Amino acid sequence: MKIQVINPNTTASMTQKIGLAAKAVASPDTEIIACNPTMGPVSIEGHYDEALSVVGLLEEIHQGEATGVDGYVIACFGDPGLLAARELARGPVLGIAEAAMHAASFVATGFSIVTTLKRTQVIARQLVENYGMSRFCRNIRAIDLPVLELEIAGSPARKTIIQECKSALAEDDCGAIVLGCGGMADLPAEISDEIGIPVIDGVTAAVKFVEALVSLGLSTSKVGDLAYPIPKPYTGMLAPFAPKK
Amino acid sequence: MKIQVINPNTTASMTQKIGLAAKAVASPDTEIIACNPTMGPVSIEGHYDEALSVVGLLEEIHQGEATGVDGYVIACFGDPGLLAARELARGPVLGIAEAAMHAASFVATGFSIVTTLKRTQVIARQLVENYGMSRFCRNIRAIDLPVLELEIAGSPARKTIIQECKSALAEDDCGAIVLGCGGMADLPAEISDEIGIPVIDGVTAAVKFVEALVSLGLSTSKVGDLAYPIPKPYTGMLAPFAPKK
Amino acid sequence: MKIQVINPNTTASMTQKIGLAAKAVASPDTEIIACNPTMGPVSIEGHYDEALSVVGLLEEIHQGEATGVDGYVIACFGDPGLLAARELARGPVLGIAEAAMHAASFVATGFSIVTTLKRTQVIARQLVENYGMSRFCRNIRAIDLPVLELEIAGSPARKTIIQECKSALAEDDCGAIVLGCGGMADLPAEISDEIGIPVIDGVTAAVKFVEALVSLGLSTSKVGDLAYPIPKPYTGMLAPFAPKK
Amino acid sequence: MKIQVINPNTTASMTQKIGLAAKAVASPDTEIIACNPTMGPVSIEGHYDEALSVVGLLEEIHQGEATGVDGYVIACFGDPGLLAARELARGPVLGIAEAAMHAASFVATGFSIVTTLKRTQVIARQLVENYGMSRFCRNIRAIDLPVLELEIAGSPARKTIIQECKSALAEDDCGAIVLGCGGMADLPAEISDEIGIPVIDGVTAAVKFVEALVSLGLSTSKVGDLAYPIPKPYTGMLAPFAPKK
Amino acid sequence: MKIQVINPNTTASMTQKIGLAAKAVASPDTEIIACNPTMGPVSIEGHYDEALSVVGLLEEIHQGEATGVDGYVIACFGDPGLLAARELARGPVLGIAEAAMHAASFVATGFSIVTTLKRTQVIARQLVENYGMSRFCRNIRAIDLPVLELEIAGSPARKTIIQECKSALAEDDCGAIVLGCGGMADLPAEISDEIGIPVIDGVTAAVKFVEALVSLGLSTSKVGDLAYPIPKPYTGMLAPFAPKK
Amino acid sequence: MKIQVINPNTTASMTQKIGLAAKAVASPDTEIIACNPTMGPVSIEGHYDEALSVVGLLEEIHQGEATGVDGYVIACFGDPGLLAARELARGPVLGIAEAAMHAASFVATGFSIVTTLKRTQVIARQLVENYGMSRFCRNIRAIDLPVLELEIAGSPARKTIIQECKSALAEDDCGAIVLGCGGMADLPAEISDEIGIPVIDGVTAAVKFVEALVSLGLSTSKVGDLAYPIPKPYTGMLAPFAPKK
Repeated sequence: MKIQVINPNTTASMTQKIGLAAKAVASPDTEIIACNPTMGPVSIEGHYDEALSVVGLLEEIHQGEATGVDGYVIACFGDPGLLAARELARGPVLGIAEAAMHAASFVATGFSIVTTLKRTQVIARQLVENYGMSRFCRNIRAIDLPVLELEIAGSPARKTIIQECKSALAEDDCGAIVLGCGGMADLPAEISDEIGIPVIDGVTAAVKFVEALVSLGLSTSKVGDLAYPIPKPYTGMLAPFAPKK
Repeated sequence: MKIQVINPNTTASMTQKIGLAAKAVASPDTEIIACNPTMGPVSIEGHYDEALSVVGLLEEIHQGEATGVDGYVIACFGDPGLLAARELARGPVLGIAEAAMHAASFVATGFSIVTTLKRTQVIARQLVENYGMSRFCRNIRAIDLPVLELEIAGSPARKTIIQECKSALAEDDCGAIVLGCGGMADLPAEISDEIGIPVIDGVTAAVKFVEALVSLGLSTSKVGDLAYPIPKPYTGMLAPFAPKK
Repeated sequence: MKIQVINPNTTASMTQKIGLAAKAVASPDTEIIACNPTMGPVSIEGHYDEALSVVGLLEEIHQGEATGVDGYVIACFGDPGLLAARELARGPVLGIAEAAMHAASFVATGFSIVTTLKRTQVIARQLVENYGMSRFCRNIRAIDLPVLELEIAGSPARKTIIQECKSALAEDDCGAIVLGCGGMADLPAEISDEIGIPVIDGVTAAVKFVEALVSLGLSTSKVGDLAYPIPKPYTGMLAPFAPKK
Repeated sequence: MKIQVINPNTTASMTQKIGLAAKAVASPDTEIIACNPTMGPVSIEGHYDEALSVVGLLEEIHQGEATGVDGYVIACFGDPGLLAARELARGPVLGIAEAAMHAASFVATGFSIVTTLKRTQVIARQLVENYGMSRFCRNIRAIDLPVLELEIAGSPARKTIIQECKSALAEDDCGAIVLGCGGMADLPAEISDEIGIPVIDGVTAAVKFVEALVSLGLSTSKVGDLAYPIPKPYTGMLAPFAPKK
Repeated sequence: MKIQVINPNTTASMTQKIGLAAKAVASPDTEIIACNPTMGPVSIEGHYDEALSVVGLLEEIHQGEATGVDGYVIACFGDPGLLAARELARGPVLGIAEAAMHAASFVATGFSIVTTLKRTQVIARQLVENYGMSRFCRNIRAIDLPVLELEIAGSPARKTIIQECKSALAEDDCGAIVLGCGGMADLPAEISDEIGIPVIDGVTAAVKFVEALVSLGLSTSKVGDLAYPIPKPYTGMLAPFAPKK
Repeated sequence: MKIQVINPNTTASMTQKIGLAAKAVASPDTEIIACNPTMGPVSIEGHYDEALSVVGLLEEIHQGEATGVDGYVIACFGDPGLLAARELARGPVLGIAEAAMHAASFVATGFSIVTTLKRTQVIARQLVENYGMSRFCRNIRAIDLPVLELEIAGSPARKTIIQECKSALAEDDCGAIVLGCGGMADLPAEISDEIGIPVIDGVTAAVKFVEALVSLGLSTSKVGDLAYPIPKPYTGMLAPFAPKK
């Protein structure tokens, strides 16, 4: 089975980290294709970054479809372009926020999210509502450090994240932690050991859930709003994106 | 006051119709700048079209900011890129779905939406929830004709819309109709005359609400998630979109 | 266009302040008629005051209808008698809580309300739910001073309000402030300058939204529950209020 | 124990019917005082009627307090003035819609409401939400006959109600019926016999729940928004309503 | 009228306390049968205890039905087995959490719950949602002492409860307290005297509400999901529980 | 990895069918242990059956824990005893309703449930709410045939189910079907082929999700309400169920 794990930003070091985390949990017969778009923001830290990251993300999905990919993971905690990607893909597509929150609801009756920037808390909040997770989500916390801090060796980010997870455990009445950034994919085991409750990274959760769906023979519904895009012309720079018959 | 009304698809005839509707209701001292992107889908009929329309839409907002625009209207009923546009803009930005639903809630305790394609009903449904309009929205109806049918002289679309509005009035216990497509901006008066309840087009509603906000001195909050995008590099084809300091 | 701005309490100084605020933002061709009932509470600070203020308010609407008023503003943050007033009126009727919250949701993804008495917080809370604003409202704060304090020259109320707005900005993760009392209609510009985010007063917001609706040709739906009251006898002191054919 | 059952409209025949129903279920040591205001609408069929009925209703509560009443029932299905009445009263105050819905949720997992006019369905809908009954209420049905039809001997209203209850049972997946008008207080036993599920009238339910609360020593909370109205002047015709210290 | 008050745990001293509280408020013509199962947990402090308490509880209901009981109270704040019990019973069945929350919503616009263990807060939270009480419930507090502490003479539990109620009053903006354990049935009067707002114990509230329903002739709906269990074999140790025709 | 798939009713033929379905999708290195309790109802068709099925279910979990089981599936669509089972288990526990609904939300924006008896629709409805799936669930349909009909060779049940799925596709605006009974575990492929949208059986979905969670190293949170049951005595027939230290 081929699973394409798309880091929607263009920072290769993050893509590599995400790819390693994905491969570490994938089944032996799963091929993980970790990639990032050739265009777009180097990090996604707001609605604008997110909206523009979707172009490159969809290009990756187009390529994935052309090369027989069986399922996709969108490896940014805002789950950018999730429904657009599902229109394009035959197989299942999961966002890492989606996967992580669902996984958390399977092992605890309440979870807290620990994300990077304060300004992206609103995005997480909307996802919580979109996925019906309001009754499980106890709090959304931010360490208020830029996403790319997580890529810097020796950055205090890791320590700050652990500290915030401890605060969540002490104050939020939560039974699990959801890590709110693709760049935290290397942290769950370490933090879980430290604080003693399940700590969930969406990259790995999404890989396993996509594997599960593909094994079950479940692909994206092609009846209704997730049917393939209606063929039509696109103009200008986006002409290559026009849906074909 | 300069208000830029952006039709996010690239069909000029629809932009013209939308511009006419906007100008017809604008205050004498309001300059309406109707435009559409130079790139992207000729019509927006799903999540994928919508996601890609945002690139061109944001380019228009960039230009608007450079030329002193006071407020913006996003003239597609899916309100594509609304929060991303708000990050970019100093002045207020309204989507036409947003404006129409809010206006409807001011003149009736329940409204029904009449949109084009069945497959976009899900998008409308999500907007209803995002805007907190669930308790006002009685039904979302679709005539199941492509968006560009509304651009064809002699098309039966107009008749079908009126018929659907009549069904809404008869069956949905609604006191107002929200027209669910920017391409219906020329219809509200005619339909309202025919069925006897308020019929609301979002283009005109949004223009007046943006005028109202600008008159009140209200612009988009620049504290929190709608602050200007964080400066950073963008790569590839999207490099020109990189937020500057 | 004639807009009647009704302060539902009987304190003339507050009516005057509200009228000045309304006139300051009204379009040149809008005539603002600021008034208050001839009977009822001098301030509205609870469910009981609110319920009884509605009688005089409806009397004002009756008079407005008799004199060709095009739209109404109910200038008390509890929006007393809103649906009853809509039954009576041909044109649109807006409450100031309603207008302020909707305006806030147009310029920020979250707002906090700063009101006067703690005991009226419950009323604001119910309005938040009635208008579908739960996902936008971050907090409802009270300075716990009587409404009429705002009418006393040299009162510390103004300072306390600004302090509370600063606390909201610091603690509530909000991008805008909604002022929760008609008697604060003179404050938004000053506070906004001080704290740097949009501060919204409902009186001015409602005036502009009513202007917008009237310009759009939208009046209150007369099909369904907002149809004119059914003609019938009223007895006793309220006989003059009986709906006529 | 003295329980005052207030029919908020001024139609004495309905008051009498309501009083009989109340007395039929009251405990031997309960004195039922059935009354109606001396002023206001002869029937309550919309927001406007409802708003104005509250004046007379509150006058009755004032009198009740002066004469040592232990608890109150507001016998109109819109529960007009409920929170205002609670401010005024020491003892508990229940609305009949409130009592009936709560009782229904005790004996079935879903109920349908059968009310009189279509235009009052919106009022019932709002009460369902206010009382948190959305997950129990399956449907709100109207026979679309005026309230006072129920007072006319030989009217077909009774038959129409039974027919509507049968439709509810057949189509709504409900286990109980809530009768949506004080004027139906004489019907529950007859309909229940006919359709075989619990049929609940709010007048009798409210009387028993008020008895229960009084027996438990529970009165209206006087801390917070239901504290006695703040003493202040009222002007004009409403001066007698001014809250005293 | 015979009302069976079932303490679902097997601690006789708690049953006795509950029985005394029930008898103290019951009408003269009500016979209170206080009992507990012959099998199961000595206290209910989690989902597991709760699930297993239901067996003995249902055995008690079987016996109640055989001996002409008119209504039932389930005297544990988790309301274990409520819908199962309703299937089995002809008359009404109320849980004490259900009764207490409904009573609280009749006398205040907001209440806080004070329960025993922190780990059972989740159970209370789910009940709040199941009963539609989210808009009334301000907070769920725990003293974090085991249930059976309440049975120990001289235990500090009572003092801790009062302290927690005071904190609720000071911090939660609540107008009433709901006591969150059957073992607190002897406390409401004392605490209410101390803190000056209604304090509601579910045992006594449920007894009075069951009396009310029985007086109204209302029994559990036998159409739909609360119809008597479908006759079928049960195997093994549970064979005696098999529903008979 | 050892996964125990527990059919909570005592009908061996259904257990066998469920076991076969589970094995058909399990990974090569997963051992499926399909079992059913030694006591309890032969089918689960209501709240009462469900409540009593939990005893035997928990006995199976006790045994699973003693024999090193890594994760559990509760193979009845009511997910009986889910949280109690989670308290008892170290590894993850999933209900089949839970797994199926979550899987459906991954491949479609809306799903309909097709279950057996009308009287169990309420149970499904509550699960939809408990899992936050209200915005995804379009309808809950019942074929109104007993659960054990699915075990009878030549029964028309299979045909009726397919017919109901077709109706769902035609009328419910759904993109996927969730099969609402463990006894339908052999049907999804056949129905999906026939109707052309994803058809999801919870048994297989739950097996794959449990595999996923175990692979991720995620087990049930032992902090908070899902911690192991507090050691205490149980009396009578249930004494063996007492939680040990």
